Amino acid sequence: MKLTLQTDIALRILITLAQEPERIRSVDDIAAHFKLSKNHLMKTAQQLAKHGYIKAIRGRSGGIKLAQDSASIIIGNVVRDIEPDMKLAECFQSGPKGRQCALLPNCKLKGLLGHALVQFLDVLDNKTLADIA
Amino acid sequence: MKLTLQTDIALRILITLAQEPERIRSVDDIAAHFKLSKNHLMKTAQQLAKHGYIKAIRGRSGGIKLAQDSASIIIGNVVRDIEPDMKLAECFQSGPKGRQCALLPNCKLKGLLGHALVQFLDVLDNKTLADIA
Repeated sequence: MKLTLQTDIALRILITLAQEPERIRSVDDIAAHFKLSKNHLMKTAQQLAKHGYIKAIRGRSGGIKLAQDSASIIIGNVVRDIEPDMKLAECFQSGPKGRQCALLPNCKLKGLLGHALVQFLDVLDNKTLADIA
Repeated sequence: MKLTLQTDIALRILITLAQEPERIRSVDDIAAHFKLSKNHLMKTAQQLAKHGYIKAIRGRSGGIKLAQDSASIIIGNVVRDIEPDMKLAECFQSGPKGRQCALLPNCKLKGLLGHALVQFLDVLDNKTLADIA
């Protein structure tokens, strides 16, 4: 069980920007800082911008910066927005694939895993970017 | 974020066996029940046997059955034993790869994710196979 690299990178970008909220950072600069591929970082930055966490500043000294106060960015929401799939097991999927397990519809495992996931996210919902940056 | 198919299958095997604890089930039979590959199921059954949750019965009417009372099998332990990787982000890995993030050693995200994982497993530690089968 792990978060995708995309979510890992998203959180690192946000922490980096929150440490100096007024500074515009280039994607190149952040990629070099973390020794990550610029391509990977750019895609993740686009996701963060799409969800309103950061904004792009155009021009010669352009780059990215936070679009919100770091105290208003809830970590649980970032994980929900960026993580492509929080479906812990096959039965969490919608459509025919999710309905094919022979234990459904009376499976108590699905409810148990769902409860564990709620507790996981609850911890992250109680922290903002300002708390961890 | 999802569990591996191996853990999903392991839990399904255990639930199936717990529903009729005295019955010896063939791997073929369980694979057909869940419409899963026999190969996948066999590998997972070997892992479950290695960790002492089930045992193989040899012979013509052989198969697998629980090796413990279902009330003594804690779901959190099964997930820890079968899930190959609970390292939520790169920084959870040991070795050079885990130490390369520029935010370390003073990163509060690692502690936060670790706390969320503890809460996740805590829910699963409070349920036995008997509770969910």
